[in-house]
Amino acid sequence: MPIFCYGNSFVNLFLPVTHMAQRVHIGVIGAGDCSEELYQLARELGRYIGRNTWVLFCGGLGGIMQGAAEGCSLEGGMTVGLLPGNNKESANPFITLPIPTGLGEGRNLLVVRASDVVVAISGGYGTLSEIGLALRIGKPVVGIETWPGIDGIEYVETAEQAIGAVERYLAGLRRKP
Amino acid sequence: MPIFCYGNSFVNLFLPVTHMAQRVHIGVIGAGDCSEELYQLARELGRYIGRNTWVLFCGGLGGIMQGAAEGCSLEGGMTVGLLPGNNKESANPFITLPIPTGLGEGRNLLVVRASDVVVAISGGYGTLSEIGLALRIGKPVVGIETWPGIDGIEYVETAEQAIGAVERYLAGLRRKP
Amino acid sequence: MPIFCYGNSFVNLFLPVTHMAQRVHIGVIGAGDCSEELYQLARELGRYIGRNTWVLFCGGLGGIMQGAAEGCSLEGGMTVGLLPGNNKESANPFITLPIPTGLGEGRNLLVVRASDVVVAISGGYGTLSEIGLALRIGKPVVGIETWPGIDGIEYVETAEQAIGAVERYLAGLRRKP
Amino acid sequence: MPIFCYGNSFVNLFLPVTHMAQRVHIGVIGAGDCSEELYQLARELGRYIGRNTWVLFCGGLGGIMQGAAEGCSLEGGMTVGLLPGNNKESANPFITLPIPTGLGEGRNLLVVRASDVVVAISGGYGTLSEIGLALRIGKPVVGIETWPGIDGIEYVETAEQAIGAVERYLAGLRRKP
Repeated sequence: MPIFCYGNSFVNLFLPVTHMAQRVHIGVIGAGDCSEELYQLARELGRYIGRNTWVLFCGGLGGIMQGAAEGCSLEGGMTVGLLPGNNKESANPFITLPIPTGLGEGRNLLVVRASDVVVAISGGYGTLSEIGLALRIGKPVVGIETWPGIDGIEYVETAEQAIGAVERYLAGLRRKP
Repeated sequence: MPIFCYGNSFVNLFLPVTHMAQRVHIGVIGAGDCSEELYQLARELGRYIGRNTWVLFCGGLGGIMQGAAEGCSLEGGMTVGLLPGNNKESANPFITLPIPTGLGEGRNLLVVRASDVVVAISGGYGTLSEIGLALRIGKPVVGIETWPGIDGIEYVETAEQAIGAVERYLAGLRRKP
Repeated sequence: MPIFCYGNSFVNLFLPVTHMAQRVHIGVIGAGDCSEELYQLARELGRYIGRNTWVLFCGGLGGIMQGAAEGCSLEGGMTVGLLPGNNKESANPFITLPIPTGLGEGRNLLVVRASDVVVAISGGYGTLSEIGLALRIGKPVVGIETWPGIDGIEYVETAEQAIGAVERYLAGLRRKP
Repeated sequence: MPIFCYGNSFVNLFLPVTHMAQRVHIGVIGAGDCSEELYQLARELGRYIGRNTWVLFCGGLGGIMQGAAEGCSLEGGMTVGLLPGNNKESANPFITLPIPTGLGEGRNLLVVRASDVVVAISGGYGTLSEIGLALRIGKPVVGIETWPGIDGIEYVETAEQAIGAVERYLAGLRRKP
């Protein structure tokens, strides 16, 4: 059976593989510890990401990162955790690809660098730094109950609205030369 | 069909997902430009990696990196390219997960940090730096036609022998507490 | 002659060299392009830093970074520029030690990591990321006309007040075991 | 009085400050633990560096790094330690500017990136990685009793010969447009 199975999609080997590089990468950033309500919101967002066969990038730890990874992996999506430490075992259980970087907070830049669009949910100082880095290097940032009043963030209230905003940004990216 | 398809293996959703963190990561390092013969050797090594449903980590560019990625992806394996630049489009066409790091040569450390075992095939100064970094942080290194006389490298001659050495190292890692 | 002269130069060898590691490092972060008024404020802050024989750490480029470096170097202080690119020639002319990192925005983390206390003056997204990183890793942040409403920043209005806040933080750090 | 005094200190303001960016940076890399004989060799090399008012860059720890820093600081030279950890207190006592990077082995790239010419004395795997990185990014490498047989290293036997080789490289760099 010469098929390549990836996510919840079957890919024919004769499909031009360059297509792969076009897969959408969505970064989800947020607190490593969060309320049940925000966890469910992150999980719902993750499900949309997985259903779209987009790849989820996050910091690989708990809270918002775990909620998004749980939702995405439930839909068969790929979840990448760029970990601050040296051991892939430190990833939450829904990370399909744990990448230990050993860079500490330096991994924050990698999360936003690897993403086409970033969604911030709540979050502390680490998330604030990722918002700043993302906007600095020109990545669109969608925010839900996160740091307020930052010009450049598109603030929304629900996971569904966040996905709508992400899709508008992706449409814009595709129009670029 | 509530299954999660990944690589050439079917995974039941009820399988404990923590299993994922146990997936083996093999780094393949080598010159970005190489002879047809070495390309085929890297491709053969990649096929073994893919058949074992191990994840291939490399620098994502041409030569040895592309050969290994081609072989691995032909077997339905996952191929991660940790790219020096800012654009995922710079990856070779067999990279299923291109990760632009923007760190230049700084990405070399990430390749070896993410890998359980590293295989070096030929290679120039960049590969030499990766060999040094891998051995420095305690990762086993298997070498084929690469920098000679480095104590700590297990030198072999064929892709098959390299896989044998990798499997011995993996068995040793599993025995560790 | 109890002076330490750097350059072509003489040293009192009996000066306890371990004392050096205790030198205070002050990070000044802010926009690479700023108004004349803010430049003068940064320059005034730099003069205080230089007079205290503290070492100035910054990103090494223009605007606030240059203002602070000009003031500090005028007082004979040392000014370190952690540059995003590969060439030390990209530093502003008041940087006594230009350090090209080649890490792009990754150098932002290095600026705050190297500093005991960070002072933010105005600033855009890059500065926002540095504020987030500094607070994340536990460095005190003093802010002048910078991103508002960030819990954790001690907001002040003048260079003199900033130095007062810095001195209070340093006194607190010295009291730690 | 055309001197530049660093510390508590006075500066001839008419000295062209742009001159600073032209200061030569010499990286000295090598084992963190070494024989007394190699320590003295590193110390002698450091004295030449200090006398030439070049800036010494190193990893800031013991062994070869400390020997070079001791020699350089004895001559009033500046010694920069790019430390793997988060605390400047981990630097050896002869480092005048300790820079904690928090990047672990990632700091190896910073040492060679900041240097115009690199001198390797003995050394283990970390030094091997720095040699590879330096040659990869085009920095000249002079080697004394270090990893043998690496095409690209200029091997010499004494500190005096090393300085001669460094000076030839610097003359070559100055001739470049």
